[in-house]
Amino acid sequence: MRHRLKTMTRQAGKPLDALEYTGDAPAVATTIATMVYGPQGVAMTGTDSGETLPSLPVKDGEKMWIDVAGLHQPEAIRRVGGLFGVHPLILEDVVQVGQRPKLEDMEDYLFLVTKAWQYDPQAKTLGESQISFVLGRQALATFREGDVPAFDAVRARIAAGRGRVRGMGADYLLYALLDAVVDEHFVCLEKVGEDIEDLGDKLLANPEPADLEVIHKLKRETIYLRKSIWPLREVISRLAERESELLSPQTRLYYRDLYEHVIQVMDTVEGLLDIVGGMVDIYLSTISFRLNAIMKVLTLISTLFMPMTFVAGVYGMNFEFMPELKWPLGYPMAIGIMLCMSGGLFGLFKWKKWI
Amino acid sequence: MRHRLKTMTRQAGKPLDALEYTGDAPAVATTIATMVYGPQGVAMTGTDSGETLPSLPVKDGEKMWIDVAGLHQPEAIRRVGGLFGVHPLILEDVVQVGQRPKLEDMEDYLFLVTKAWQYDPQAKTLGESQISFVLGRQALATFREGDVPAFDAVRARIAAGRGRVRGMGADYLLYALLDAVVDEHFVCLEKVGEDIEDLGDKLLANPEPADLEVIHKLKRETIYLRKSIWPLREVISRLAERESELLSPQTRLYYRDLYEHVIQVMDTVEGLLDIVGGMVDIYLSTISFRLNAIMKVLTLISTLFMPMTFVAGVYGMNFEFMPELKWPLGYPMAIGIMLCMSGGLFGLFKWKKWI
Amino acid sequence: MRHRLKTMTRQAGKPLDALEYTGDAPAVATTIATMVYGPQGVAMTGTDSGETLPSLPVKDGEKMWIDVAGLHQPEAIRRVGGLFGVHPLILEDVVQVGQRPKLEDMEDYLFLVTKAWQYDPQAKTLGESQISFVLGRQALATFREGDVPAFDAVRARIAAGRGRVRGMGADYLLYALLDAVVDEHFVCLEKVGEDIEDLGDKLLANPEPADLEVIHKLKRETIYLRKSIWPLREVISRLAERESELLSPQTRLYYRDLYEHVIQVMDTVEGLLDIVGGMVDIYLSTISFRLNAIMKVLTLISTLFMPMTFVAGVYGMNFEFMPELKWPLGYPMAIGIMLCMSGGLFGLFKWKKWI
Amino acid sequence: MRHRLKTMTRQAGKPLDALEYTGDAPAVATTIATMVYGPQGVAMTGTDSGETLPSLPVKDGEKMWIDVAGLHQPEAIRRVGGLFGVHPLILEDVVQVGQRPKLEDMEDYLFLVTKAWQYDPQAKTLGESQISFVLGRQALATFREGDVPAFDAVRARIAAGRGRVRGMGADYLLYALLDAVVDEHFVCLEKVGEDIEDLGDKLLANPEPADLEVIHKLKRETIYLRKSIWPLREVISRLAERESELLSPQTRLYYRDLYEHVIQVMDTVEGLLDIVGGMVDIYLSTISFRLNAIMKVLTLISTLFMPMTFVAGVYGMNFEFMPELKWPLGYPMAIGIMLCMSGGLFGLFKWKKWI
Amino acid sequence: MRHRLKTMTRQAGKPLDALEYTGDAPAVATTIATMVYGPQGVAMTGTDSGETLPSLPVKDGEKMWIDVAGLHQPEAIRRVGGLFGVHPLILEDVVQVGQRPKLEDMEDYLFLVTKAWQYDPQAKTLGESQISFVLGRQALATFREGDVPAFDAVRARIAAGRGRVRGMGADYLLYALLDAVVDEHFVCLEKVGEDIEDLGDKLLANPEPADLEVIHKLKRETIYLRKSIWPLREVISRLAERESELLSPQTRLYYRDLYEHVIQVMDTVEGLLDIVGGMVDIYLSTISFRLNAIMKVLTLISTLFMPMTFVAGVYGMNFEFMPELKWPLGYPMAIGIMLCMSGGLFGLFKWKKWI
Repeated sequence: MRHRLKTMTRQAGKPLDALEYTGDAPAVATTIATMVYGPQGVAMTGTDSGETLPSLPVKDGEKMWIDVAGLHQPEAIRRVGGLFGVHPLILEDVVQVGQRPKLEDMEDYLFLVTKAWQYDPQAKTLGESQISFVLGRQALATFREGDVPAFDAVRARIAAGRGRVRGMGADYLLYALLDAVVDEHFVCLEKVGEDIEDLGDKLLANPEPADLEVIHKLKRETIYLRKSIWPLREVISRLAERESELLSPQTRLYYRDLYEHVIQVMDTVEGLLDIVGGMVDIYLSTISFRLNAIMKVLTLISTLFMPMTFVAGVYGMNFEFMPELKWPLGYPMAIGIMLCMSGGLFGLFKWKKWI
Repeated sequence: MRHRLKTMTRQAGKPLDALEYTGDAPAVATTIATMVYGPQGVAMTGTDSGETLPSLPVKDGEKMWIDVAGLHQPEAIRRVGGLFGVHPLILEDVVQVGQRPKLEDMEDYLFLVTKAWQYDPQAKTLGESQISFVLGRQALATFREGDVPAFDAVRARIAAGRGRVRGMGADYLLYALLDAVVDEHFVCLEKVGEDIEDLGDKLLANPEPADLEVIHKLKRETIYLRKSIWPLREVISRLAERESELLSPQTRLYYRDLYEHVIQVMDTVEGLLDIVGGMVDIYLSTISFRLNAIMKVLTLISTLFMPMTFVAGVYGMNFEFMPELKWPLGYPMAIGIMLCMSGGLFGLFKWKKWI
Repeated sequence: MRHRLKTMTRQAGKPLDALEYTGDAPAVATTIATMVYGPQGVAMTGTDSGETLPSLPVKDGEKMWIDVAGLHQPEAIRRVGGLFGVHPLILEDVVQVGQRPKLEDMEDYLFLVTKAWQYDPQAKTLGESQISFVLGRQALATFREGDVPAFDAVRARIAAGRGRVRGMGADYLLYALLDAVVDEHFVCLEKVGEDIEDLGDKLLANPEPADLEVIHKLKRETIYLRKSIWPLREVISRLAERESELLSPQTRLYYRDLYEHVIQVMDTVEGLLDIVGGMVDIYLSTISFRLNAIMKVLTLISTLFMPMTFVAGVYGMNFEFMPELKWPLGYPMAIGIMLCMSGGLFGLFKWKKWI
Repeated sequence: MRHRLKTMTRQAGKPLDALEYTGDAPAVATTIATMVYGPQGVAMTGTDSGETLPSLPVKDGEKMWIDVAGLHQPEAIRRVGGLFGVHPLILEDVVQVGQRPKLEDMEDYLFLVTKAWQYDPQAKTLGESQISFVLGRQALATFREGDVPAFDAVRARIAAGRGRVRGMGADYLLYALLDAVVDEHFVCLEKVGEDIEDLGDKLLANPEPADLEVIHKLKRETIYLRKSIWPLREVISRLAERESELLSPQTRLYYRDLYEHVIQVMDTVEGLLDIVGGMVDIYLSTISFRLNAIMKVLTLISTLFMPMTFVAGVYGMNFEFMPELKWPLGYPMAIGIMLCMSGGLFGLFKWKKWI
Repeated sequence: MRHRLKTMTRQAGKPLDALEYTGDAPAVATTIATMVYGPQGVAMTGTDSGETLPSLPVKDGEKMWIDVAGLHQPEAIRRVGGLFGVHPLILEDVVQVGQRPKLEDMEDYLFLVTKAWQYDPQAKTLGESQISFVLGRQALATFREGDVPAFDAVRARIAAGRGRVRGMGADYLLYALLDAVVDEHFVCLEKVGEDIEDLGDKLLANPEPADLEVIHKLKRETIYLRKSIWPLREVISRLAERESELLSPQTRLYYRDLYEHVIQVMDTVEGLLDIVGGMVDIYLSTISFRLNAIMKVLTLISTLFMPMTFVAGVYGMNFEFMPELKWPLGYPMAIGIMLCMSGGLFGLFKWKKWI
């Protein structure tokens, strides 16, 4: 939260028409990987910084994918944006990484921005990086802050000619990439779910006030996830419904399927939220239960020793006329009385299930 | 939850056009039972694996039901799907069993997917298996992971010629099967309700922190049920409203009736959710109440013995000039004082209802 | 809840086209009371079981009310239904008493089902029985499980010619009956409100864990009431808005008025729900408060006796050189020290308002 | 709540066409004050009971306001209602005072009913009385249960010719009266807010279980206020949007402004609700905090006296061979040991911040 | 809350057509700064009180910004309002500062009112001041209660010719000002977030009942922020959608971007609300945890000293026949027994993790 607020604040001071990256990714050289493919074959251009971009439109039946990684070099982003005729304000959204998932239909091109998730097993946190898509006629440009493993799998599939992607249009490529990004969500959520389960075990074994802060942090993070999925759902729904020349009717069914996946991600996130929400109860209840256990010990000790100490006190009195003190069996008798009283009380409470 | 996440994750890695079953049901041979029926009679074909499927359309006035059980053999599913001209992506939904209930109107056929519930009395859990329906012209195909007892009852009714099903179209058969599946929900919910009531009794008698986890698990499961019913409600509502050649106006009223049943299932699930939600309160309150009971015991013991021990201590002092010590009746007097003090205090607290 | 689930389950096993009553009312003979009335006069037929039903339509300017009490005889219900041409599925809704309030516009007739409430002062519970209405042209049929006192009042008013009902159509009769049923809700809710208030007093005086279960039961019952009113609101709203030949424009204002009443019933139910919801807090807080009171007693006793017992212990030591033991006033001095210590501590805590 | 339920129940028994007042205001003679005004001048008629009502319509450019106070005389209300041609059912709404705010557009006239609030400083409660408005062509009739101070201010303004009201139509008069009624809400809410703040101070100083009931009562009252404002918002919104001959376009902006005021009343009520809602937490937490304070005292006393009493017990043992007992400095040594042990423990706990 | 209620109440008494400032800003002279700018250049007029206002419309291609600071002089506000032909009621909204953000489209001009936020680091509270905008053809008037730093930045940018603002219309100027105001929200929220974090640390270290009041105050303030952002979202959304001659199609994309920013402000506020909401749990849990810690100390002391004191009591009894008293090693033996008992119990509880 704090971190995200800082990003917003940094952005607030910016002049309106700069194209400056506002995220936290380390400043590396921007690389641009171009791929021209069709049913027949694939041509991949080595990564450069955009000086030798191919021109549009591509040959009939061919599709182009321009993949821009690293958002620190405004001129590279402007050059790729220029190829599709992208509005300067849209390009600002590409580099200002606090965007919520959204879809802008600009007639000549569709602009779509969403988040990819990465799970960091060390810090046990979920990181996110922004991905922007510009879908033109038979061409797709993607902009990302850093590595997105989901992209590599799709690239490999195109190169190998597996699946339907080579035979269909750029809108199907957009679907395939989005589908890979959404599937990555499931993998991340499974890991988060394991962390949550571990925390649950810890809570039952040894609850501490600091855990409550961890729970609330987890809860907020999960709420944040839900909030960031919600507009994605909207975006995919609009892709599935929209009448646009850029989206062929054949891909509509695929987007509908993707929509179902996003709904499932949301359901999963809400399931996690329910679990996390219940943890506060478990935490408080475990603390209460321990208090009860301690109180029982205290009661047990008092039950055992208070009557016995009392009897000892009685026979410690200095009255001259206490006949028991003279009895030869007075001492064992006193001990006997003590044991009887304590044992009786103990039995009574045991029987009443108070102890 | 964990289980379902795993299913999702397994699915995530799949190539897009495989037709591989993602569920947990044991791999048995797929069986296909075909039933051709009309007002006059019924012809049932023994279960094979689909090599000798009848062709469509059937004779006028006759209806065909193709019931596929077991989703491990892609070729059988493809063959039945081919009969209705089902899109490959739809067939993927048949075998990927994490689907939410949904309805796709593909003009030539309707595709509907939902869940059947089974209650496992040993594990006291509710299992679910996916059922897909493809409604064509005078023909219905059903795909299921394993046994669905609700189906057998409908099959027996057709065979015996009871009820309206022989005289009406394939859309009525779809209704009859959905109705049987929905009715099964009530049976399952009644059993879940009994388990919940048992847990409630246990909570009042002997609450433990682990119970709280059970409650939260129950709550999440019930929320999951509610979530899986919600889209079914939507699906049935659309069947009742939809203008389609495949749905005759006569069956509309039946679907409207079915819709009411689904609403009642939802109301029941929400009722259970209310009960489960209140259990956390009961749990915490029982713990509190026990703490109170124990504190009362402790207070009682202190009230009884502290004053008496004090008096004993006084007469155990070694002062030379303590006249009471010389009195012949000093000892019984001291005992009398003790009893009076404790008795008085005890009476006072009793009267104030503190004990 | 359990009871209602059972009703559902019983229904689940039924063949689809039986006309069997699924409720709990004792099986008595069905009675059919027919009333033909107009501005001029009233003709009432003694209750029979429907063999000699009058035929429809009635004479111009006259209206007919057929009131069927007891739902155990399918043939009587079928006969009355036949008079209005009611669809078999609708008749099933008449005898399957788990229906939510609903309105079906079947062009030739309107079908409306709702619940009448009865308060049972012994069991302190609210019972409900299902009432179905079939509104035809100048005729109304009502079906009910048993006695509905609200109906008798309307019948008496028609017989006596009081009010507007004789001069208006059958749609006004429907309004008058619904209005009487809704007004009965207020009477029931007032009694439930008194029970809730009694429980509130009991909670403050002597809270027990079992009370919490009572509260949660009350809460669920109240939620159930709200849920059963909600669709009635919808039904009345549709009657007030609907364009239908069966509903004259003059009665619309009456239905709008009735709608306001239903809203008020809902507001009342929600008010009760707020009270019941707050009771958990009151319960838990009273328990806490009592714990505090007990802890104060314990503290008081410890404060009084621990210092005194300590002083007694000091002068019970057996050192040879303890000058105080030889003093003639040593004993009263020791008692004085004891009183001072306890009194001082007691005063201090009193002053700090800890006790 | 109880009170309001009673009102409903009383109403339930009534025949449908009586015109009997159902509220609690004392039965005083109904007074009717008529005011005819225009840009040039004002004519006010002394209050009578309606025998000499002026006829409608008034002269061109003039407006009439008929203000009926006291609803116990049906004939007076019928006479005024007759002037505007008001439907009998609408007149029933005027005298049955449990109405929610609503607007009925009857073409020839608008009927509007709402509540005026009065704060009773003694009982610290908010009372409400029902006001009905009938807006005809250049004429407005108002019906109220008793005194409404907000009305007097508007009357004085018309008499003095201040503000815009003399120059505009009867619809503006309706606005001016509603605006005065809504402004009164703010005054009442400020006083309720002060009471709530006082209760908050009391809770921190001296919480008792009975306070919790007060909080819940306050909460329910505030929820009731919110519920009674909600439909008013709807009513004003419809006045601002509605196309009607009775509402001139010039007043629309005024109604829009009034709408904003109602929204602000709602926001204020919701703000109060948040405060009241938080009070349960404060109450429970103060109780907990006090328990903690008492436990600390108990721990302190135990810490101080248990070790010392133990040492005294040791030197009270009667062993023959206890060398310390013979030491000349044995007694002061024992006292020293006691002080060291208690002081040390006390210091330790102080250092650990447990006490 | 109290403060805002007072503002409302003050307003309530006002005559309807006064133009009196209702806010709390100190009464300073109203200053009017006029700026006429275009792509070529800028002309700024020194601040006066409006006697020498330029006339409208301005030259083609030029835009005028009239910035009114201080709302205490009605005549100045009327003069500027007159320039745009603003309705008197709208001008009242300018000076009555309790407005919620809203947009009125009056055909000839758009009226927009919103809030600017300022963070006061001393009082650690968020203040707000009202800003009104009147957008006419190529001209914009702004009215504000006091200093708004966000405005100065835009003014400087126009003067320096940086950014797009000189080349675009008055609607873009409105956007630039709103954008600066919204960006200021992020800066304020970051500071509020820091305060909240500080409070969280304090809660874990040293929770007090008064903190709970602080938490609830913070919660209410945050809820208030959310409520005041909500209508702003609506306003900006309408600006982005609206067909109006005053808004050029080029600026629509900018308003859409601004809309996203407002959504992010809302998300941030809701995130803060989640944190604050969780604080009650943390507070209550820390109190509970401390109670547990104290109870453990008490149990520890009882465990250690009760058995030892009992043994001492036994050997303090005065029986004549107690052989141990005569043993030479009786005393060390007794001490040994004491240590064993206490040590054993202590070890047992340690092993059971009760202490």
